[in-house]
Amino acid sequence: MIKAGIIGSTGYAGNELVRLLMGHPEVEVVWYGSRSYVDEKYANIYRNMFKLIEDKCLDDNIEKLSKEVDVIFTATPQGYLAGVLTEDILSNTKVIDLSADYRIKDVATYEKWYGITHKSPQFIEEAVYGLCEINRDKVKGARLIANPGCYTTCSILTAYPLVRDGLIDVDTLIVDAKSGTSGAGRGAKVANLYCEVNENIKAYGVASHRHTPEIEEQLGYACGGDVVINFTPHLIPMNRGILATEYASLKKVNLPDGSVGYPDEDMIRDCYKKYYKDEYFIRLLDKGMNPETRWVEGSNFVDINFVIDERTHRVIMMGALDNICKGAAGQAVQNMNILFGFKEQEGLELVPMC
Amino acid sequence: MIKAGIIGSTGYAGNELVRLLMGHPEVEVVWYGSRSYVDEKYANIYRNMFKLIEDKCLDDNIEKLSKEVDVIFTATPQGYLAGVLTEDILSNTKVIDLSADYRIKDVATYEKWYGITHKSPQFIEEAVYGLCEINRDKVKGARLIANPGCYTTCSILTAYPLVRDGLIDVDTLIVDAKSGTSGAGRGAKVANLYCEVNENIKAYGVASHRHTPEIEEQLGYACGGDVVINFTPHLIPMNRGILATEYASLKKVNLPDGSVGYPDEDMIRDCYKKYYKDEYFIRLLDKGMNPETRWVEGSNFVDINFVIDERTHRVIMMGALDNICKGAAGQAVQNMNILFGFKEQEGLELVPMC
Amino acid sequence: MIKAGIIGSTGYAGNELVRLLMGHPEVEVVWYGSRSYVDEKYANIYRNMFKLIEDKCLDDNIEKLSKEVDVIFTATPQGYLAGVLTEDILSNTKVIDLSADYRIKDVATYEKWYGITHKSPQFIEEAVYGLCEINRDKVKGARLIANPGCYTTCSILTAYPLVRDGLIDVDTLIVDAKSGTSGAGRGAKVANLYCEVNENIKAYGVASHRHTPEIEEQLGYACGGDVVINFTPHLIPMNRGILATEYASLKKVNLPDGSVGYPDEDMIRDCYKKYYKDEYFIRLLDKGMNPETRWVEGSNFVDINFVIDERTHRVIMMGALDNICKGAAGQAVQNMNILFGFKEQEGLELVPMC
Amino acid sequence: MIKAGIIGSTGYAGNELVRLLMGHPEVEVVWYGSRSYVDEKYANIYRNMFKLIEDKCLDDNIEKLSKEVDVIFTATPQGYLAGVLTEDILSNTKVIDLSADYRIKDVATYEKWYGITHKSPQFIEEAVYGLCEINRDKVKGARLIANPGCYTTCSILTAYPLVRDGLIDVDTLIVDAKSGTSGAGRGAKVANLYCEVNENIKAYGVASHRHTPEIEEQLGYACGGDVVINFTPHLIPMNRGILATEYASLKKVNLPDGSVGYPDEDMIRDCYKKYYKDEYFIRLLDKGMNPETRWVEGSNFVDINFVIDERTHRVIMMGALDNICKGAAGQAVQNMNILFGFKEQEGLELVPMC
Repeated sequence: MIKAGIIGSTGYAGNELVRLLMGHPEVEVVWYGSRSYVDEKYANIYRNMFKLIEDKCLDDNIEKLSKEVDVIFTATPQGYLAGVLTEDILSNTKVIDLSADYRIKDVATYEKWYGITHKSPQFIEEAVYGLCEINRDKVKGARLIANPGCYTTCSILTAYPLVRDGLIDVDTLIVDAKSGTSGAGRGAKVANLYCEVNENIKAYGVASHRHTPEIEEQLGYACGGDVVINFTPHLIPMNRGILATEYASLKKVNLPDGSVGYPDEDMIRDCYKKYYKDEYFIRLLDKGMNPETRWVEGSNFVDINFVIDERTHRVIMMGALDNICKGAAGQAVQNMNILFGFKEQEGLELVPMC
Repeated sequence: MIKAGIIGSTGYAGNELVRLLMGHPEVEVVWYGSRSYVDEKYANIYRNMFKLIEDKCLDDNIEKLSKEVDVIFTATPQGYLAGVLTEDILSNTKVIDLSADYRIKDVATYEKWYGITHKSPQFIEEAVYGLCEINRDKVKGARLIANPGCYTTCSILTAYPLVRDGLIDVDTLIVDAKSGTSGAGRGAKVANLYCEVNENIKAYGVASHRHTPEIEEQLGYACGGDVVINFTPHLIPMNRGILATEYASLKKVNLPDGSVGYPDEDMIRDCYKKYYKDEYFIRLLDKGMNPETRWVEGSNFVDINFVIDERTHRVIMMGALDNICKGAAGQAVQNMNILFGFKEQEGLELVPMC
Repeated sequence: MIKAGIIGSTGYAGNELVRLLMGHPEVEVVWYGSRSYVDEKYANIYRNMFKLIEDKCLDDNIEKLSKEVDVIFTATPQGYLAGVLTEDILSNTKVIDLSADYRIKDVATYEKWYGITHKSPQFIEEAVYGLCEINRDKVKGARLIANPGCYTTCSILTAYPLVRDGLIDVDTLIVDAKSGTSGAGRGAKVANLYCEVNENIKAYGVASHRHTPEIEEQLGYACGGDVVINFTPHLIPMNRGILATEYASLKKVNLPDGSVGYPDEDMIRDCYKKYYKDEYFIRLLDKGMNPETRWVEGSNFVDINFVIDERTHRVIMMGALDNICKGAAGQAVQNMNILFGFKEQEGLELVPMC
Repeated sequence: MIKAGIIGSTGYAGNELVRLLMGHPEVEVVWYGSRSYVDEKYANIYRNMFKLIEDKCLDDNIEKLSKEVDVIFTATPQGYLAGVLTEDILSNTKVIDLSADYRIKDVATYEKWYGITHKSPQFIEEAVYGLCEINRDKVKGARLIANPGCYTTCSILTAYPLVRDGLIDVDTLIVDAKSGTSGAGRGAKVANLYCEVNENIKAYGVASHRHTPEIEEQLGYACGGDVVINFTPHLIPMNRGILATEYASLKKVNLPDGSVGYPDEDMIRDCYKKYYKDEYFIRLLDKGMNPETRWVEGSNFVDINFVIDERTHRVIMMGALDNICKGAAGQAVQNMNILFGFKEQEGLELVPMC
């Protein structure tokens, strides 16, 4: 049994962490951090927890916290962790950061896309990008995990095998992503009011969204080169879920019969299987099934599939996940499981609820 | 052609006023007031108006405004108008107030339920409660109209004929009302965020909602006595619409055949027809049709019907309207039409859009 | 480890049963019945179960099924079970019926409200009405459980203590209930299409809904007399959840100080505690908290609270539950747990997901 | 004043036609066709029309209808009109077809994508594709208008100027479109039930949707060559609205300064203005504004804008319209206005309702 603390426990990702950890047999949450609700009962804010949690919210004090727990989750705004992290903290405890502070290796890139000066670049190098299915081995033994973003997890996993094996031309990769509104956070903004979001769809951050360089960096590692993509997020009137629809031109490759040509359905499917067949949380759907967000709601699954368009020689890849679970808190717990040597799906065998 | 000014034009009711007045052949809006967006183009805030309105938003200055227009609409928070209204203003122009400041004749009642000191009680007496179907004659010639609230309009009109003619026992009247979220306004509050409202329903202001005394006062005039009711509003995950479901015990009355007993379907229906048969905006539905909010969306209609329960000798009355239109801006325009001698439905013959 | 079969496993309640039983350590589902999808993979219909369930759907054959399992759940249309149930089946296995076939003791009442001839009235007497918190003892040892309806569970539990202890006048009881659309089932009907339900609210079955006599019968047992109420259901644009808002006049009673008067906040609260303080699934909220459906979504909880209106001497009781879980499948599992001597909350300690 | 008949008046597009024509000063609807509701009052099906329309629905009889009206709108399933159209009908009256029967000039292409044998290919040649902004002159004088589809109108208008003027490489064009659920029609299908659509997003018809060849044909005319694109529609939990997000690589062109390079913001904007600056229904938004469906809801507007990505040399074009209005009924009325020489925006100056 380990002890965990959450800084930012009253945001949407924070509350999902709480929900998941309550069902985890190896973890006890002992610190419900929330700058906005200090001294209020957690269950007064999130009444789903009524009678289930008696704790009150605590103010941010990561140094103190680091001495009391085995792992800290920071579900905090950009820049928070970078502003307070110290060597002491990292020598006391593991830190799993759900913000973007340590996701991008190049400080200049981070500062440009986020518009923030990075306060502790000295920890970037050692931080491990916690996309479990791809970086599992590096996660083991790390002190600081940069937990990937929701759009990023979905976008990368959907394309990764084809990028890695060179079946698509990465220069043609376009990611058109659609997210439920919980991704916008629990801040009181007019743009996220019910009446502004309901009966509406819009793109935002076109050609400028902060998740872009994160996707590019990781896919760059996969193919061993620079990747520059288009990524367009959209806001959808639903609470949870991300769907990424991704387009890329197929590359001519050596075919099994010795000729050169475009990979077919079987080759693409085999490529996905090669990387994902043993991954519990990645479900490669049967041919003809398009991923839908509702089938993964409340779970840590990513549903993936693709369609080849013979007319354009493009492959349309689709991935769906729950942005708050696999796209945030679920993956954080998965990282924790790896870090502490628990069974990777411990506490995460959640049946999606539709 | 008259000139109109709107103070509070960027709230939801304010924007609906703008939409309605754009289609009104006798009115020109010359003042788009918005404390929050001074000097910004109105169409930047409400992009439905892109290319349709070129004006910029103006700061609040009701004295200046009163000299420039024939009518002022105040779609402002409680207490605003009471704090600035003067005899000068009222002698310059008509004022139609969408707030509650002048709806309640008894100052103490207003101050108790709203928790505000009334700054200009001297105008309460002359203010006319602008529930057009009931107070039409008083509206003509008034200087100051207290435009009724959304819950109130729906709750009163649904029960009015039966209360007026003594067919129900007003002491048993219970109003269970359900409202779309636009009724909560456009303020940036966590409770009104998409993810807090979607997939949820809750009651609020139980036994304490501010619209209660307004309903009681008006129904009291109807029956010539004191009325004390239960009114329970609920928040519904939709943008527009209010449904009021109202319960009351039937009173034994003299029946057409000379006996004494409970009124039947025909008597109740005749009572509704007696008051509403010539009312364009009130649609008494056919037997068996329950009002639904979508059938009145975007229009100034109130759909009303009832069911008699022979087992309990109660009548269940139901009324549906668009809270932003007939429940706010539409009724304000209807009042303006009466005030200025225009055809009452001018600019309001809107076909509901489902 | 017991074996279970589900007839009607592809309806919304059926799928929730599947979800819940997958997380139950003592049960294995061996029969996924679905007349509509015979021979299709269950996970093709409910893709949330992709990779989690490999079984195909089976045609209805309750006789055969009764020899293969320890418990049968029938999540079927009204009249199905009554048409096929036999003594043989009941001697082979336990049956938990999610339909209304055996909920009402008086056959004539059933036939009048449901418009169906009851095909096997001989089993009505022995059937136990499975409202666990109230009939727990009778459930133990039963062969046939009539699992309560969703509206009914919510309506009864919300008022039960006050009815039982005579604190309210049951003749004044009015239940105004609001349900998510999953309660309307998965049948392909125009009225339940997305565009018909979204942005809308309506009452239906006014003074005639089939759940009325079920509520009346059970509350009648509670107070030891006849109960006749008004029950008005409404359709709400959300998937899951029921909120019941209930109104009743307080009765003058002997007060603690010896005088006679209306019960106060403390007396009412004590009355609720008397019956519910040890009930895991009933959460009596703190004063001032109104139940909201989102706080119980996906769980077996019922959240209850009340407000006293000193002006009208009425109490407004409110209850919220997940119609598909505590209102159907969750309660069925709870009954199963009681029947088989498992811990009552086994498989049901679900943290609500908001 | 002309007379109009609608075949298929109880579908979603049919009802929108009714709504629009009620506000049109030059048209009287004299025939409400609906095979499904023969002899029922129209206002019983669409209760928004209660007290506004007294007519009953009529069975399909296009020959009889053609002798009684000046224009017929067919809002019918694919293949209906092709199966009944005759020279006689066309000599009696104008026909505006909202189905796809005459949209595609090549019969084989139609039959392949729609899987239907075309019953009257002899009328395809004379049919005019009624995308008003582009084919206005051809519409005048036509007898048969093939009214464009909703996805198509949005997709084509969003890219048309850049395709026409060769600023983008059409071989790279990808259209990722998102539609409200009314686009799926009013048929009773499980897939379109509220609970199946709500809290969900999915792609469908990937690389195989029927609107693909229609977009390709029209853009082919624009650029004078063959166009083969990827078009991916998605289903969104909202009633009305389509957003098309379109991606294409910029082509190097002669720049104003004499050099060769990628067109910049100004060149692209000028190109849009060149074609659309006098179009009332096309609103080219200001730089930085992304189209949102709610800003066009209930109106005939198409809101368009674009972003250039300097990193990938792609332009991201976005267009939003109301799928039932400009994407179906509104455009049909616009075509009628052109056909009969009415002012083009007559009856269509609808302020979007948000």
